[in-house]
Amino acid sequence: MALGQLEIVVQGQGLHEFTEQVNSWLDSQNLFGSGLCTLFIQHTSASLLIQENADPSARVDLENWLNRLVPENDPLYTHTLEGPDDMPAHIKAALTASSLSIPMENGRLLLGTWQGIYLWEHRHHQGKRRVIVQACN
Amino acid sequence: MALGQLEIVVQGQGLHEFTEQVNSWLDSQNLFGSGLCTLFIQHTSASLLIQENADPSARVDLENWLNRLVPENDPLYTHTLEGPDDMPAHIKAALTASSLSIPMENGRLLLGTWQGIYLWEHRHHQGKRRVIVQACN
Amino acid sequence: MALGQLEIVVQGQGLHEFTEQVNSWLDSQNLFGSGLCTLFIQHTSASLLIQENADPSARVDLENWLNRLVPENDPLYTHTLEGPDDMPAHIKAALTASSLSIPMENGRLLLGTWQGIYLWEHRHHQGKRRVIVQACN
Repeated sequence: MALGQLEIVVQGQGLHEFTEQVNSWLDSQNLFGSGLCTLFIQHTSASLLIQENADPSARVDLENWLNRLVPENDPLYTHTLEGPDDMPAHIKAALTASSLSIPMENGRLLLGTWQGIYLWEHRHHQGKRRVIVQACN
Repeated sequence: MALGQLEIVVQGQGLHEFTEQVNSWLDSQNLFGSGLCTLFIQHTSASLLIQENADPSARVDLENWLNRLVPENDPLYTHTLEGPDDMPAHIKAALTASSLSIPMENGRLLLGTWQGIYLWEHRHHQGKRRVIVQACN
Repeated sequence: MALGQLEIVVQGQGLHEFTEQVNSWLDSQNLFGSGLCTLFIQHTSASLLIQENADPSARVDLENWLNRLVPENDPLYTHTLEGPDDMPAHIKAALTASSLSIPMENGRLLLGTWQGIYLWEHRHHQGKRRVIVQACN
């Protein structure tokens, strides 16, 4: 059982790929055989996503579509003290994932050919987000 | 490998925090070291959610937003025999999570500062819901 | 730790139950005691879902509701080279699950009475989808 923490640098809303950070951490753990890698985000206004990492236009459309579904300044919101992007961010996080479980073989993630691991930042936030990474085999 | 079942008492639609029930169960298992805690809900009209546990207004807005997105009595529905809240509940459960995976350290959940674990009841239901809890290390 | 790959035959959009394929694979592994079964889909235009397996009308409504929420030919889309069903499929996959974690007891999945495991095909696709299945105990 190996446990670590990744810091993902984000520069505003959108999908930030960090597949290589996960792979680098796994390499440093010298794991062998099959196993399970779990990712968990310690925030409630950003989330985790497995998505296509081939064509960037798919990520742009995902972001724009979700922003249209969950707009800022919706009169429904009462939770507004932390800014107009805060409540939409909680809703977007609720509609996507807080944790991902990815099987491993020979210490490597069994991702599909076109799959990448993304942190989906839902706030107009520049800084770092924390993702716990754990592997068991 | 420890396995248990939690009963979460719900009093109608909304977000019911049960972080303390999970922590109490983990304490009773005398786990040490790092590990993984998995939660799984045995129902398809309620779901699991990690959300902010600081300001209750965020939960109210989440509930109201999802009720507006997935209203009762939509003429699209054909699955109506179990009442007007049943089909919306299945859709809401599909858009949120059935299982959550949370890493542990020293036998404690590695939740972020403001994160709580919630059962999201989607029906006008009073009673108990079953969540399977499992820990491995 | 047991690791396998399931091939799910799909015949167009919709919910394809594969609970029995998972059970058959688990039976072939001769697992005992409690444990955890993880399912991971190696695609980004199909997803995994736990849903009611009693009344087929619930699945029809789920499919129709999501198709209305995420229609084809939305002028918002720029990722259109792979056909009108491709970008909606990525969005639908982002709103549902890539991985599921299901606790086991005596080598059997601890599903609720009415729960089935589904692959949700989001494209007008006929063929096979790959799901990685893993069990640890």
